[in-house]
Amino acid sequence: MRHCRWTSLPGVTSMVSSGAMSASGNLMDFLDEPFPDVGTYEDFHTIDWLREKSRDTDRHRKITSKSKESIWEFIKSLLDAWSGWVVMLLIGLLAGTLAGVIDLAVDWMTDLKEGVCLSAFWYSHEQCCWTSNETTFEDRDKCPLWQKWSELLLSQSEIKTILSGFIIRGYLGKWTLLIKTVTLVLVVSSGLSLGKEGPLVHVACCCGNFFSSLFSKYSKNEGKRREVLSAAAAAGVSVAFGAPIGGVLFSLEEVSYYFPLKTLWRSFFAALVAAFTLRSINPFGNSRLVLFYVEYHTPWYMAELFPFILLGVFGGLWGTLFTRCNIAWCRRRKTTRLGKYPVLEVIVVTAITAIIAYPNPYTRQSTSELISELFNDCGALESSQLCDYINDPNMTRPVDDIPDRPAGVGVYTAMWQLALALIFKIVITIFTFGMKIPSGLFIPSMAVGAMAGRMVGIGVEQLAYHHHDWIIFRNWCRPGADCVTPGLYAMVGAAACLGGVTRMTVSLVVIMFELTGGLEYIVPLMAAAVTSKWVADAFGKEGIYEAHIHLNGYPFLDVKDEFTHRTLATDVMRPRRGEPPLSVLTQDSMTVEDVETLIKETDYNGFPVVVSRDSERLIGFAQRRELILAIKNARQRQEGIVSNSIMYFTEEPPELPANSPHPLKLRRILNLSPFTVTDHTPMETVVDIFRKLGLRQCLVTRSGRLLGIITKKDVLRHMAQMANQDPESIMFN
Amino acid sequence: MRHCRWTSLPGVTSMVSSGAMSASGNLMDFLDEPFPDVGTYEDFHTIDWLREKSRDTDRHRKITSKSKESIWEFIKSLLDAWSGWVVMLLIGLLAGTLAGVIDLAVDWMTDLKEGVCLSAFWYSHEQCCWTSNETTFEDRDKCPLWQKWSELLLSQSEIKTILSGFIIRGYLGKWTLLIKTVTLVLVVSSGLSLGKEGPLVHVACCCGNFFSSLFSKYSKNEGKRREVLSAAAAAGVSVAFGAPIGGVLFSLEEVSYYFPLKTLWRSFFAALVAAFTLRSINPFGNSRLVLFYVEYHTPWYMAELFPFILLGVFGGLWGTLFTRCNIAWCRRRKTTRLGKYPVLEVIVVTAITAIIAYPNPYTRQSTSELISELFNDCGALESSQLCDYINDPNMTRPVDDIPDRPAGVGVYTAMWQLALALIFKIVITIFTFGMKIPSGLFIPSMAVGAMAGRMVGIGVEQLAYHHHDWIIFRNWCRPGADCVTPGLYAMVGAAACLGGVTRMTVSLVVIMFELTGGLEYIVPLMAAAVTSKWVADAFGKEGIYEAHIHLNGYPFLDVKDEFTHRTLATDVMRPRRGEPPLSVLTQDSMTVEDVETLIKETDYNGFPVVVSRDSERLIGFAQRRELILAIKNARQRQEGIVSNSIMYFTEEPPELPANSPHPLKLRRILNLSPFTVTDHTPMETVVDIFRKLGLRQCLVTRSGRLLGIITKKDVLRHMAQMANQDPESIMFN
Repeated sequence: MRHCRWTSLPGVTSMVSSGAMSASGNLMDFLDEPFPDVGTYEDFHTIDWLREKSRDTDRHRKITSKSKESIWEFIKSLLDAWSGWVVMLLIGLLAGTLAGVIDLAVDWMTDLKEGVCLSAFWYSHEQCCWTSNETTFEDRDKCPLWQKWSELLLSQSEIKTILSGFIIRGYLGKWTLLIKTVTLVLVVSSGLSLGKEGPLVHVACCCGNFFSSLFSKYSKNEGKRREVLSAAAAAGVSVAFGAPIGGVLFSLEEVSYYFPLKTLWRSFFAALVAAFTLRSINPFGNSRLVLFYVEYHTPWYMAELFPFILLGVFGGLWGTLFTRCNIAWCRRRKTTRLGKYPVLEVIVVTAITAIIAYPNPYTRQSTSELISELFNDCGALESSQLCDYINDPNMTRPVDDIPDRPAGVGVYTAMWQLALALIFKIVITIFTFGMKIPSGLFIPSMAVGAMAGRMVGIGVEQLAYHHHDWIIFRNWCRPGADCVTPGLYAMVGAAACLGGVTRMTVSLVVIMFELTGGLEYIVPLMAAAVTSKWVADAFGKEGIYEAHIHLNGYPFLDVKDEFTHRTLATDVMRPRRGEPPLSVLTQDSMTVEDVETLIKETDYNGFPVVVSRDSERLIGFAQRRELILAIKNARQRQEGIVSNSIMYFTEEPPELPANSPHPLKLRRILNLSPFTVTDHTPMETVVDIFRKLGLRQCLVTRSGRLLGIITKKDVLRHMAQMANQDPESIMFN
Repeated sequence: MRHCRWTSLPGVTSMVSSGAMSASGNLMDFLDEPFPDVGTYEDFHTIDWLREKSRDTDRHRKITSKSKESIWEFIKSLLDAWSGWVVMLLIGLLAGTLAGVIDLAVDWMTDLKEGVCLSAFWYSHEQCCWTSNETTFEDRDKCPLWQKWSELLLSQSEIKTILSGFIIRGYLGKWTLLIKTVTLVLVVSSGLSLGKEGPLVHVACCCGNFFSSLFSKYSKNEGKRREVLSAAAAAGVSVAFGAPIGGVLFSLEEVSYYFPLKTLWRSFFAALVAAFTLRSINPFGNSRLVLFYVEYHTPWYMAELFPFILLGVFGGLWGTLFTRCNIAWCRRRKTTRLGKYPVLEVIVVTAITAIIAYPNPYTRQSTSELISELFNDCGALESSQLCDYINDPNMTRPVDDIPDRPAGVGVYTAMWQLALALIFKIVITIFTFGMKIPSGLFIPSMAVGAMAGRMVGIGVEQLAYHHHDWIIFRNWCRPGADCVTPGLYAMVGAAACLGGVTRMTVSLVVIMFELTGGLEYIVPLMAAAVTSKWVADAFGKEGIYEAHIHLNGYPFLDVKDEFTHRTLATDVMRPRRGEPPLSVLTQDSMTVEDVETLIKETDYNGFPVVVSRDSERLIGFAQRRELILAIKNARQRQEGIVSNSIMYFTEEPPELPANSPHPLKLRRILNLSPFTVTDHTPMETVVDIFRKLGLRQCLVTRSGRLLGIITKKDVLRHMAQMANQDPESIMFN
């Protein structure tokens, strides 16, 4: 019998026959090795952070102990230690290059649009699609780009969910990278009311996923891979705005779930390399990292805080309005027949955008140019319509210091054009964001805020000019002084609107001042961001990304939500009262067949293992996936394993009657340290544990007896219930 | 008997007699109320974060449910919700004001020193102490300031430890605030090689502690109080440097332990208010938030990255050298007789500093001025010795764009003076930091880096001027071009040295660019900071603050340390093999006397409660402090409680023989959800749990049976042992 087993295991045979090792002992060691595939997750499942972490530590220990054996192993261990940095470097290089290429291509496409597609402007998009189709793709019969677009959803919500430990396969694949890059160029150059930062974050995450698949340290550990992805998200924002520090903070504040300090530090590196690469490519031709460079010549005054705070209120209201309307529209798209025609929707919205946007100069130009113009201070040489002030011919002016002047005709024209553009932007952005195209929200939000801000700024400026004697102006705005900078108001308004939509604060202010280089204006920016967040929070806690995560029903346990209800673990755990008892395995009394039946009849991800059904004392937890693989493997390779073999999880085999079949030892797949809480544990503590430790499930005990189980989805369902939402709206996969 | 009990409880009597409540039911409710003092911690103990959090949620729930009862309760609930912001506002205002006052006073004192104490310069310090003594304090016989100084230790290490959940009473008191503020003025104006940012963080934390004691929400919850302190630390850095965003990041990266997003957001507010207050006071007279404002006129070139990285290496080496030497010196001070004469030490170091520093102009001036001068670009009108270049009389120069010129005599003189000053600063800072005076490290570190950087910068500049034809210079440095900015090198050097000492990266770069306004130079700053951290980390992972925490033996579980050893919970838990069994309480069989004996004989902070000694099934955990209070209270107020009363933790009293004394119910003080792990849990997971959940202790079980206990100190001791350090060097209280 023993011989038979050997022949059925050729690998072991050769191993044993070649070496000086004790045969039977070694056979057991080999069988104790993990099977291939054990420990990976299925699609649309949540990862177990603690487990991933401990697997990585094991790997690290192995390498460290091996490294003392030979020079080669030592070099390998060094390479392993540095692979994190190498990945970051590669991500930074690729993300920066792609961003540069995209910027250059967008410029080229925008020119192309104006030169070639102008006669048929309303279907320029499709035409451009055909154009690129002929050059890039083999399949000429249909327009594959358009087909693919409908598969590309929003990005940031998904990335946030993936980073929280959810598995969505293919979302960060190589094809996604390629298609997203190409479509991003098309979308941004099309003039739709969208920004490029969301898709660039996605593109950078695809780069991160691609490079981490090259290093086993990251490809085999879902937890480590998410560290890389967090850093990649930072690199994405870094290149979208030329704001490396803001990118890191954005990743920390908005996107990431699990952010150890080491990640902060690597994100920083990736963001640096990406920004640097972009700067070397120099797509804007000004050798600056900064997207909208501004220089103002006057400080701001205390009294101006009042309009700044008003802009903050406007930003908060815009954030609330946008989030509510956009979500309502997206829900309608999801639930009605509208959702079946994504391509048609894109074409219609593009057409409407094109037709309405064209007549107004402020909607015709690209949104980035618009923001840039609105932020700008009116220097002496400025020819823009916004700078059409009536100059005093008697005054000799230094180049930089221009006193306040009365507005000319151009400014008044600009004012009503801006007002129309503002209304248009507000409406069209609500309908555009969430379509099945790559879409970012920063640039349109900033444009809305910048328009409102510029108008307020011009208003205050003219008020101050014509009413120098009012008390509020008397102290700081004498005749002939340069006291109000409308561009600063635009900047503050942009920050406020961005803050209202995304609910960022610190990272927002950092991005704004990296964007604009306006270091002295940090207090106005902060005041507006704080006000805007307060106002928006007063109407609802969810920012746009959380709202979309919620809409899509992803199991995302938000770090920001506070759970303050007085429920206990016993109220949430399953089985509930009246339900059949928990499916458990016993440590040494179930047969292979019993277990196979249990697996067939249930769809749980794992089963607790107890001493016996009477005592119900918990000894561990076995994953469904690993159980299936272990039984399959044993049936194929291990002789004597039949349906009524006893499975045991103890160190020693149980004492069996003489004629019983060979038992199957499964201790190796048993997690001996399952997480437990008592039934009296408040749910707020349980929520905290799930969040901070990234658990997948947690067992509930009372005085050492197993009572039930709480999974991450149970927690989410309970939270939805407590917030008076329909728990079934959380759909999960 | 029942009547007697009532008379012994006058509060209950009046309560019951006044109301329409069921008497006996209400009596029980009253007895179930927590005793005063229950739940506070003793000095030099660690708090339990989970518990503090759940207490706060309880409080919040109570207020929310009450708020529906009346308008007044609703207003109270609103006030409670806003109290966090009010505290932040007050902290910001006070910290900003204090910083402004300190800045003004330092200026005044520095003038005073030069005007009055110059003839007796070497004891100016003592004299100034006497001066302030006469004006501020009543006790004229001795110099209380000097006495008090020796009680004021370093600040940042202690603050870091306190924020991690350790209790050090009096460290953040009102007197500390007052004394620290006064001494800080004296120290900074004395010219010692110290900065003011560390003490300002301490001052801000004292403000935070003071204001949080005014609101019950914060004064009664140690966890909430730490949120306020984290924000206060951010405000401290914000005013020390005029860098609000850097301050928030510093608090996040360096100081804080528990940093929920809400704190990030409030820190931001406190930092904003503080910076704004300081700006309104305007102590530097330039209306800027920024301490060292610089404007450079040339971009940097790729080739310059090489000297920047060299400066990073220098910074890393400086960080290592400083940390090692300073810790060695502090250890010597701690262990030898030197530590007994802190006042003498301060006088000697001050005298040496004064004598050696005076002749050299770069050590004579205040360190901030020195840094400012080193950062400065040499404009056309600059009269400093560092800008003594040989001008070409034939050239007509625009104001800003001065081409590279050969160095004059002044520059060469400055070079060797800087070299001497650099050596002096390096040596004296090692001995100064850690003396019993308020001391910050940022400014001296930056000075060391700035001196080294300026010298390298001048070297590169002259090299480029004299060798225009070298390949590396040919592309970017033609004759007559302004290509090298030595001030930028000083800035990069300062960042590198600061990074080497503190091991900050992101917050460092943010602080540097908030300090200098040099937004375009973010890549050089990042490159230097990254290099410096790598180099310093290669020699040892500990930054200066961690090293001091370690030296002082505080129980600080660093978030950054990774624990990668393969030990299990069973290796760390107590009792160890051969030790007496764990002291446990049983749920319903111990008498009051048994428990009192147990409390007397042991000094554990708490005791696990099990069903019985035989089954050892865990039902909860009782705190020592609460047990003592509960027994004391029961003996005083509850009739029939005698030494052999049975204590029970179950819902129902145990069945007792008829003549036995009245039993004592203690379920109320029982924590029904103690944290448990199994004995097979890897220590890395346990460390992670302790860190992330902020536990104080954790019970170890195997298949539902209690085996032992792991406290935070056990974890720290084990980590020290694994790192081959003497576990007893972790002294704790």
